[in-house]
Amino acid sequence: MAPADGRFLRACRRQTVDKTPVWFMRQAGRYMKEYRELRRRHSILKLAKTPKLACEVTLQPARAMPVDAAIIFADILLPVEPMGVRLAFKPGPRLSPAVRSAADVERLRDFDPASALGFVPEAIRLCVERLGPTPLIGFAGAPFTLASYLIEGQPSAHFIRTKTFMQAQPKAWDKLMRKIRRITADYLCAQVAAGASAVQLFDSWIGALSPEQYRGFVRPHSAYVIEEVRRRTAAPVIHFGTGTSGFLEDFAQAGGEVIGVDWRIDLGRAFRRLGPSRAVQGNLDPVMLLGPKAALRSEVFRLLEQAKNRRGFIFNLGHGILPETPFENVAAVVDWVHRGLD
Amino acid sequence: MAPADGRFLRACRRQTVDKTPVWFMRQAGRYMKEYRELRRRHSILKLAKTPKLACEVTLQPARAMPVDAAIIFADILLPVEPMGVRLAFKPGPRLSPAVRSAADVERLRDFDPASALGFVPEAIRLCVERLGPTPLIGFAGAPFTLASYLIEGQPSAHFIRTKTFMQAQPKAWDKLMRKIRRITADYLCAQVAAGASAVQLFDSWIGALSPEQYRGFVRPHSAYVIEEVRRRTAAPVIHFGTGTSGFLEDFAQAGGEVIGVDWRIDLGRAFRRLGPSRAVQGNLDPVMLLGPKAALRSEVFRLLEQAKNRRGFIFNLGHGILPETPFENVAAVVDWVHRGLD
Repeated sequence: MAPADGRFLRACRRQTVDKTPVWFMRQAGRYMKEYRELRRRHSILKLAKTPKLACEVTLQPARAMPVDAAIIFADILLPVEPMGVRLAFKPGPRLSPAVRSAADVERLRDFDPASALGFVPEAIRLCVERLGPTPLIGFAGAPFTLASYLIEGQPSAHFIRTKTFMQAQPKAWDKLMRKIRRITADYLCAQVAAGASAVQLFDSWIGALSPEQYRGFVRPHSAYVIEEVRRRTAAPVIHFGTGTSGFLEDFAQAGGEVIGVDWRIDLGRAFRRLGPSRAVQGNLDPVMLLGPKAALRSEVFRLLEQAKNRRGFIFNLGHGILPETPFENVAAVVDWVHRGLD
Repeated sequence: MAPADGRFLRACRRQTVDKTPVWFMRQAGRYMKEYRELRRRHSILKLAKTPKLACEVTLQPARAMPVDAAIIFADILLPVEPMGVRLAFKPGPRLSPAVRSAADVERLRDFDPASALGFVPEAIRLCVERLGPTPLIGFAGAPFTLASYLIEGQPSAHFIRTKTFMQAQPKAWDKLMRKIRRITADYLCAQVAAGASAVQLFDSWIGALSPEQYRGFVRPHSAYVIEEVRRRTAAPVIHFGTGTSGFLEDFAQAGGEVIGVDWRIDLGRAFRRLGPSRAVQGNLDPVMLLGPKAALRSEVFRLLEQAKNRRGFIFNLGHGILPETPFENVAAVVDWVHRGLD
């Protein structure tokens, strides 16, 4: 069976499915002992930049559990290096020099992701060969999330520099977002060309913004990326953000066959607000995977109940799997989701 | 003019006002040089526990700007000390020992806030004498936010221990919330008895929860606190939370004449979702105060426009003033809000 016939891609396109498809953000990660073993010997960047290793990591969860999709092992910050920004993990990301001025934006190098980040398409090619019928998801950070890392230089609590940059230097902000969005669109298309069946655009920190800030400074740029992928490939786009419940309609307007939501909104309400033209991916609180199994089980079935009779549901978490998560709980969720409501 | 006739309290009760009332969360704080000078000589806890000093700090912003309410200087964590938990600031709060078991919950001491935290009502009495017609707001942390600090022992990114505690030990969680809610209700009533004209219940971290977690584990306890204040006093309650846009109706169901919202939701939408029976407080992004003045100004007028023709609007931020904020920007907002739309 080709990936196109599988339940994950059918759900992306709001077609009927035999069972609810399920995969997990950061399903290749520290909660798996196979991953921790590789990480003892290699840095994150080494894993991501070595196609054989990236492929190995990508396959680990797909071998261990019957997930309905794999996601290529990479990091949303990989594109900053060919832009000319140094990237290190200590253990959180540190970028230098940070972007603080219009001149800094000018200095960011343009590049062709298919070659400068060629190790990612290469890893995708290796994975697709070995995955068989399981579809592979490619991904990239969304323009806002990438811009905020470039400006802050590290994870941020309040995004003071980012928000001040967009308000005080709107032209430089626009130029920065246009550079990022062009690279991001090409990067995602290169991943599809290499064999990714779908792509996810991660706007992980978008919940820091007000709806007005989102509409004015971000939406056109996310929309550009999603539209380019739509125009140049046949792969569905999963548009994921956290903290979007205040402006979910605005977020969806930027595009995406599938909208990924976090646990801060009732799944049934997300379906209603997004309307019949979108598939929905989500939205188990990742912390539930660390709690008692009975509560986890009842939460999984509560979510399935809310998505009952809705086409286009992909079971996932509301954000990435936490490193402390017991593997057996993740595997149990896959089993429950596939078993489904009676 | 008595506080009861002022525009802040009139807005709390959805009566007509001559101008939009405005005050700021954390308006007594490090962005003011008068506050920084006092903080050089005294710790936060020393300031909060010395009525003369707490009163002095409370009055600083009310002297410097024509804000429509003062808020007593205190810390939401003060109640943990008489519970038998050590509290320090390094500079974020550290609580020890943290609550990890049912036995830990049992060991938390019950106490009478009017005496054990008597310095707060005492500071309120001093302030009310000196504030004249400006109303004074009392406040407390909401049960969830306080419980999360008791369990985590410090600020937390994912609230893993808190959420796991509520799921794995629901009876101990219920007991903990009942202890906190009783103390919190008495504490707020003692503040009103001492002269506070209104009280605000701060559920600062509630946005970490899913709507389902909120309804099941938190709402009844917040509702208890608000109902007790309503039953025993005439003071309006401002029920404030951040990240509530996914479950604003559930949050409002716990009570509060005024619902405080953060900037992650359009103000007009908040009014519509809350309906005609609630006043709304909010919701400028505090980071806007650090940016260019033109953008700040247009955002203030955008918010006023959204609240136009709505009774019961109190201008505030979506969370506390950040320490890096220039004082003059805060003062300018007060001026713009009072000037209003033409």
